[in-house]
Amino acid sequence: MDVSPGLLTDRYELTMLSSFVTDGRVDHRAVFEAFSRHLPDGRRYGLLAGLGRLLPLIASFRFNADEVAWLRAEGVVNDVTAAYLRDFRFTGDVDGYREGDLFFPHSPVLTVTGTLGECVVLETLVLSVLNHDTAIASAAARMVTAAQGRPLVEMGSRRTHEEAAISAARAAYVAGFASTSNLAAGLRHRVPTVGTAAHAFTLAYATEAEAFRSQVAAQGVSTTLLVDTYDIEQGIRAAVAVAGRDLGAIRIDSGDLAEESHRARILLDSLGATSTRIIVTSDLDEYVITALADAPIDGYGVGTRVVTGSGHPTVSLVYKLVAVADSTDAPLRPVAKKSADKASSGGRKTAHRTYDGSRLVTETLTVAPDLEDTVQVPLMRAGRIVHEPTLEEVRAHAAASLASLPPSAHAVSNGPPYLTARTTTDPQEAP
Amino acid sequence: MDVSPGLLTDRYELTMLSSFVTDGRVDHRAVFEAFSRHLPDGRRYGLLAGLGRLLPLIASFRFNADEVAWLRAEGVVNDVTAAYLRDFRFTGDVDGYREGDLFFPHSPVLTVTGTLGECVVLETLVLSVLNHDTAIASAAARMVTAAQGRPLVEMGSRRTHEEAAISAARAAYVAGFASTSNLAAGLRHRVPTVGTAAHAFTLAYATEAEAFRSQVAAQGVSTTLLVDTYDIEQGIRAAVAVAGRDLGAIRIDSGDLAEESHRARILLDSLGATSTRIIVTSDLDEYVITALADAPIDGYGVGTRVVTGSGHPTVSLVYKLVAVADSTDAPLRPVAKKSADKASSGGRKTAHRTYDGSRLVTETLTVAPDLEDTVQVPLMRAGRIVHEPTLEEVRAHAAASLASLPPSAHAVSNGPPYLTARTTTDPQEAP
Repeated sequence: MDVSPGLLTDRYELTMLSSFVTDGRVDHRAVFEAFSRHLPDGRRYGLLAGLGRLLPLIASFRFNADEVAWLRAEGVVNDVTAAYLRDFRFTGDVDGYREGDLFFPHSPVLTVTGTLGECVVLETLVLSVLNHDTAIASAAARMVTAAQGRPLVEMGSRRTHEEAAISAARAAYVAGFASTSNLAAGLRHRVPTVGTAAHAFTLAYATEAEAFRSQVAAQGVSTTLLVDTYDIEQGIRAAVAVAGRDLGAIRIDSGDLAEESHRARILLDSLGATSTRIIVTSDLDEYVITALADAPIDGYGVGTRVVTGSGHPTVSLVYKLVAVADSTDAPLRPVAKKSADKASSGGRKTAHRTYDGSRLVTETLTVAPDLEDTVQVPLMRAGRIVHEPTLEEVRAHAAASLASLPPSAHAVSNGPPYLTARTTTDPQEAP
Repeated sequence: MDVSPGLLTDRYELTMLSSFVTDGRVDHRAVFEAFSRHLPDGRRYGLLAGLGRLLPLIASFRFNADEVAWLRAEGVVNDVTAAYLRDFRFTGDVDGYREGDLFFPHSPVLTVTGTLGECVVLETLVLSVLNHDTAIASAAARMVTAAQGRPLVEMGSRRTHEEAAISAARAAYVAGFASTSNLAAGLRHRVPTVGTAAHAFTLAYATEAEAFRSQVAAQGVSTTLLVDTYDIEQGIRAAVAVAGRDLGAIRIDSGDLAEESHRARILLDSLGATSTRIIVTSDLDEYVITALADAPIDGYGVGTRVVTGSGHPTVSLVYKLVAVADSTDAPLRPVAKKSADKASSGGRKTAHRTYDGSRLVTETLTVAPDLEDTVQVPLMRAGRIVHEPTLEEVRAHAAASLASLPPSAHAVSNGPPYLTARTTTDPQEAP
């Protein structure tokens, strides 16, 4: 059963809405900000992703008649709120960091301005999309750095939810992966897709050579032959015997990849297949890729570890009310909670960066509106999307963002955030 | 853009298919098995989940005309394979462990029998669904044990992909969670939904008491009031002042939950609110819940850690060809790969268990067909689903499965698998 974007929501968003509709606050002006108090442990930066998916979901945030009837029957909303939901559409403004931007602790990556009602109901969806896609992109970026220019294929679909897989492929591509195994990501997001054969293919034939002949007949000699089903040396010999010296690549998916790739290179060269590339797969991540830096490897396939965020399958972006009006025509009043370990900073914040040449040096937040030269850009105005970069533009922006970091921020080892966004008018918030 | 289930697939499944269609093997009989070589580090058992989602996806595994045209244009398949895909439907058989069953290393949780073509293309989808949902259910089951009968609410939608969130809510419910915050899971899967208010709700009013009055007016005194927006003691006093001694519950979402819940219980009792429950949330998992066992807590809300599998966001189920015929009317030939660290065991396996009273003692696999009293049950026959338990039945089966384990297997600490499924006719496979 398909559900409308409006249902991708925690129940408490609608029970709060029901109170706001009932007591008349629903149309008061409000500002919510999405930000993170901290990066995942050991990470130097975050790479924002998911906006290209999120904005269309906000624009189409609706509830159909059956869903509203169900919400009413379940007691989630009362009658007047059910009527409100039937006509719901988001008519507010969204500003934010661009997809592919870096972010740091306290960076206000998304600002939603509108009525209290239309802002509050977006919380779950905003965070689901941004936390997931950003976790993948932030991990993928570290793998791209570790690969030192060698291409990476995202091939983790089988290790994550079938719909998350499509978004993960997109996020990894934003971060600099070259391609994905996921066909839906190819059709839906135009991410380049690749793939040749699994072990089952070889096993389906009486001999490895017979399997290779069928694959080369179908895909040509530029294909990648998987050589480790039985014995890698024999597999490589069979591959070159079948495809010739112009074989595109071999893939090794088991064993000690450093040792096996060295042996494979020597053997391929001795067979005259000097241009045949060596692709490795099998539990790779940024740490293993770094350890393989000196191996004669031409490309990596990364599965589990990229789609699960390499130890950090989510980031901790939160969506907080920072200003609200106390009546329909009142001015916005900054608000902030004071909970023990989760205090927030009131007021709408704008972010500014300083650079030393192309290198990012500081990020500063001001609560007093300072709209000149902000990191944030307009994303939606009156409910309409006003920022629609192509996926290639987003990917190029991510590459430029990553290039603005010094080498220390790209270290694969754990370390503190490269910087923290500091609020100039609220010094106690700066950790 | 919606995509058909067929597109939720790695490209190499279709390039392999293309070879099989071209060289005539596509209609040879084949058997694939899904199993895991090992459980996530430290886990004593796995709890299988996702079958109720997977079987309908297999039954509707199709490619629409636009998708086939795109696959042809991208060079994924040739013309004859494009024609094959246009008419594709799965007509084979599926057997497997039941949803809510325990599994261990080498347990053959799913067996797919059919033509080589129709079996091979299901790999990615089978694994995406089962690896995701099983990871969530396996983590959730440990939290259910740790909670010792107190109810758990799944509330992690904002920390995972928006569609994965719906499936995670379902999987946690299978494992014994009481409810979810996710509305789509309520409508799609009939998981009970709960939720009352966030900090933004309190912040939207001039005073905490005013917010509580509005919530109680809308939801009644049985609601749960969130008391930690400013100061917990003052929050509790305001809550009881507004709702009276019959207030349903308070929620604490910050601070030292053991200490705060003790203080809150004393304060509530002193105010006469002796039946008001205390619900805690904030970075809970099975370890924290265990540590809170002696605190006066009546229920837990678990977010991030359940939807990300409590450190193991995926399990490592694989889908392997174990038997194939070499011609259209040939018998099945067992096959197995010999890769260094990923050897598999050939032949279709049936699983049998022994019990001591109600306690599970061993799980044994036989390659020789032994269809009496197997763990596996028929799930699909000739492409039709023949096993459709309700979600409540699945949940009851999971509870019975968990009850068949000894206390040692429920320890929260890391340990080896409670047992390993051993192949009686293939002793070298038993670790």
